[in-house]
Amino acid sequence: MKAYISENKDRFFEELFSLLRIPSISAKAENKPDMYACAQRLCDLLMEAGADEASLYETAGNPVVFGSRILDPSFKTVLVYGHYDVQPAEPLEKWNTDPFEPVIHDDAIWGRGANDDKGQLFMHIKAFEYMLRSGKLHHNVKFLFEGEEETGSPSLPEWISRNREMLKADICLVSDTTMISESVPSINCGMRGLSYLEVKVTGPNKDLHSGHYGGAVANPITVLCEMIASLTDSDGRITVPGFYDKVVELSAEDRALLAKAPFDLEEYKKFLDIGDVRGEKGYTTLERTGIRPCLDVCGIWGGYTGEGAKTVLPSEAHAKISMRLVPDQSSSEITRLFAEHFRNIAPRYVKVEVKECEGGDGFLIPIGSDAYKAASQAIKDVYGIEPVPSRGGGSIAVLAEVQKILGIDPLLMGFGLERDTIHSPNESYLLKQFFGGMESIARFYELF
Amino acid sequence: MKAYISENKDRFFEELFSLLRIPSISAKAENKPDMYACAQRLCDLLMEAGADEASLYETAGNPVVFGSRILDPSFKTVLVYGHYDVQPAEPLEKWNTDPFEPVIHDDAIWGRGANDDKGQLFMHIKAFEYMLRSGKLHHNVKFLFEGEEETGSPSLPEWISRNREMLKADICLVSDTTMISESVPSINCGMRGLSYLEVKVTGPNKDLHSGHYGGAVANPITVLCEMIASLTDSDGRITVPGFYDKVVELSAEDRALLAKAPFDLEEYKKFLDIGDVRGEKGYTTLERTGIRPCLDVCGIWGGYTGEGAKTVLPSEAHAKISMRLVPDQSSSEITRLFAEHFRNIAPRYVKVEVKECEGGDGFLIPIGSDAYKAASQAIKDVYGIEPVPSRGGGSIAVLAEVQKILGIDPLLMGFGLERDTIHSPNESYLLKQFFGGMESIARFYELF
Repeated sequence: MKAYISENKDRFFEELFSLLRIPSISAKAENKPDMYACAQRLCDLLMEAGADEASLYETAGNPVVFGSRILDPSFKTVLVYGHYDVQPAEPLEKWNTDPFEPVIHDDAIWGRGANDDKGQLFMHIKAFEYMLRSGKLHHNVKFLFEGEEETGSPSLPEWISRNREMLKADICLVSDTTMISESVPSINCGMRGLSYLEVKVTGPNKDLHSGHYGGAVANPITVLCEMIASLTDSDGRITVPGFYDKVVELSAEDRALLAKAPFDLEEYKKFLDIGDVRGEKGYTTLERTGIRPCLDVCGIWGGYTGEGAKTVLPSEAHAKISMRLVPDQSSSEITRLFAEHFRNIAPRYVKVEVKECEGGDGFLIPIGSDAYKAASQAIKDVYGIEPVPSRGGGSIAVLAEVQKILGIDPLLMGFGLERDTIHSPNESYLLKQFFGGMESIARFYELF
Repeated sequence: MKAYISENKDRFFEELFSLLRIPSISAKAENKPDMYACAQRLCDLLMEAGADEASLYETAGNPVVFGSRILDPSFKTVLVYGHYDVQPAEPLEKWNTDPFEPVIHDDAIWGRGANDDKGQLFMHIKAFEYMLRSGKLHHNVKFLFEGEEETGSPSLPEWISRNREMLKADICLVSDTTMISESVPSINCGMRGLSYLEVKVTGPNKDLHSGHYGGAVANPITVLCEMIASLTDSDGRITVPGFYDKVVELSAEDRALLAKAPFDLEEYKKFLDIGDVRGEKGYTTLERTGIRPCLDVCGIWGGYTGEGAKTVLPSEAHAKISMRLVPDQSSSEITRLFAEHFRNIAPRYVKVEVKECEGGDGFLIPIGSDAYKAASQAIKDVYGIEPVPSRGGGSIAVLAEVQKILGIDPLLMGFGLERDTIHSPNESYLLKQFFGGMESIARFYELF
């Protein structure tokens, strides 16, 4: 595949950039037309790469792209999953280049979606194209690209249920995760689930003059801060009743295995420029993000946030709160427990509203399977190092559903790196990983 | 004056509206040209009303308007203070009409500044015009209108110091406060001081993926919430060390006098639609806003605040924090104590910045003076009820400076009402108070 890449590199960039230029932000209603444009562009790219068919399928939300090449019914079938929607680009002022005008510099592609997940799903289209054109493909390949991953895949499970037959496969291959580092390749063997909610605290029915009322009327921002502060105790444990009931403690043996992954705490703190890490007592940093649940405030707002000093006691305060869950926790149950708890702790001088935003369960992947072994060998062949199994802290909501509905395991061959800062300004994707990923995927087809 | 009002009502509205239409928002740099336009319009109105002179005076910030009519050096001199700047109109979506296109309906004037303070200062121009044209004026009158009251009057004290001679007067007459209610006229005999700061909490040096880092890296929003929550204890007392050191406890006698002001807690809660009030233990609602200091979060922001669910562990969180102070507290000292404390309580996994925004001391006004007695009688003559002395919770930063630099007391004849919702959307000014105020001021000139 190496030679094919160097012959076709410029075309690859052109094709990928045509996807990256489309601001397919699933969180924003105004970008609805972009979702269709991006899905259509993907269909075209699949057909050009050699698919028999590729079409848009309507859902309750954004369209699903499905394409396939069936070479021989007796061949093993690989279902490739990816998502063409991206995170919002805000805060825009922190980008060094236009998030939707991709550029290449410093050996990387820069732009929103360069890695997550347009860059990574694109590797699969090109590995497929190469295998097919070089006559080496001995698999049936199906492509499933959704446009709602960043908002929790609300429509996809239902669509998968309705199209079970069409999606039949032996394995669900996904590149939407990271490796531990450039020199430490890894394969993700588990991801966290997610519960995401928006809360609103209302104090007085209108914004008030903070001089006339300050001291006598509860300030909803202060109350929201107190409520948020109370959600974690001094040991860094989440105080929502029942939150840990389903969390299974890993055995000492499993923890020892995970501890083998190389990790340098000083490097980590330096990379983030933080004085110290902070998390649940009794766990290491890798455990805190890999095998333990957590709670984060993703956004907060209320009152006057403009220039200068407005003396106001505001009527409302809002926050977006996400919880990352371990595989044994149920997202819908945790969402319910959180909402109940948040309403219960509201003091009598405010009103509280809780809105469910998105969610999905975590999952685990067996590392003894043929598919895992083939992926491990493929990466070893390309990188020269055997990849270590790791546990990712992120969530791909729909993969637990794929496991349940289609009865097949996901296989997470992700080639992102920490330095890519996905979800943040200046998202990038190292060319070495972009091409190394394509080679590894092509090699996987040879070995599986 | 009643007859003069009814003959000239339409002209009064036209003139006032020409001021209200100018968005003279001192908090926003973009409105700088509006500050000059509004100041110039005030000069014109003063000259038309009969001033000998009226001019713009440059300061380090927005221009000061000064005008005067000197009838006889042996007459008593009244210095009228007011401010032509207004609060920002945000949140704009909550206004029923354009904040800068004033309208009259339901017996009130509606628009930003209708009351605070364009509507109230305008009463003084018209009362002066009436007294002068009817040959009844036996005072020298000086007008001092500033354009930075809503941002803490940063330039005015220095300007007053430089123009001591020109500003010489016997009393500083101000209408920039409220009465207890339409049926309970009151005169403000004290105001709170103000310390206003902006704080910033920085965690990691960039926004992070909340799945990859959540649980291991301190979230600056959570930390800010914890810090804000810790600023008040369970008795509603502010925890900044030294905060209460200079606060003088009122005598039981003084508290009994203040308790005479009519106040209906159930009405108050109903007006604000709150389940309960909240404040410092051991004090009534009127005491909490009148004679006790307090702390409010006027604004908070951080992370993703747009539509939908972005899973981010943000780099920064911000808040605007105001403290209302009693007259014995020094604003500069409290600002320093707060900044020190906020930096001291920052945990090691974040960085904290504190920026001073504005401040001013509180003050008290003696109720036995000739000026107070004249004002009290004037209001009684117009309203038919003797006004009660009250303590306002708001702040007019510069009046403590007027007291110190010019050696004269302010006299607060304010005609606003709680229902006017100044600083909030849908600011209004009841016509009954607008005209009642003019009459009371004219009567004050007859009695003082």
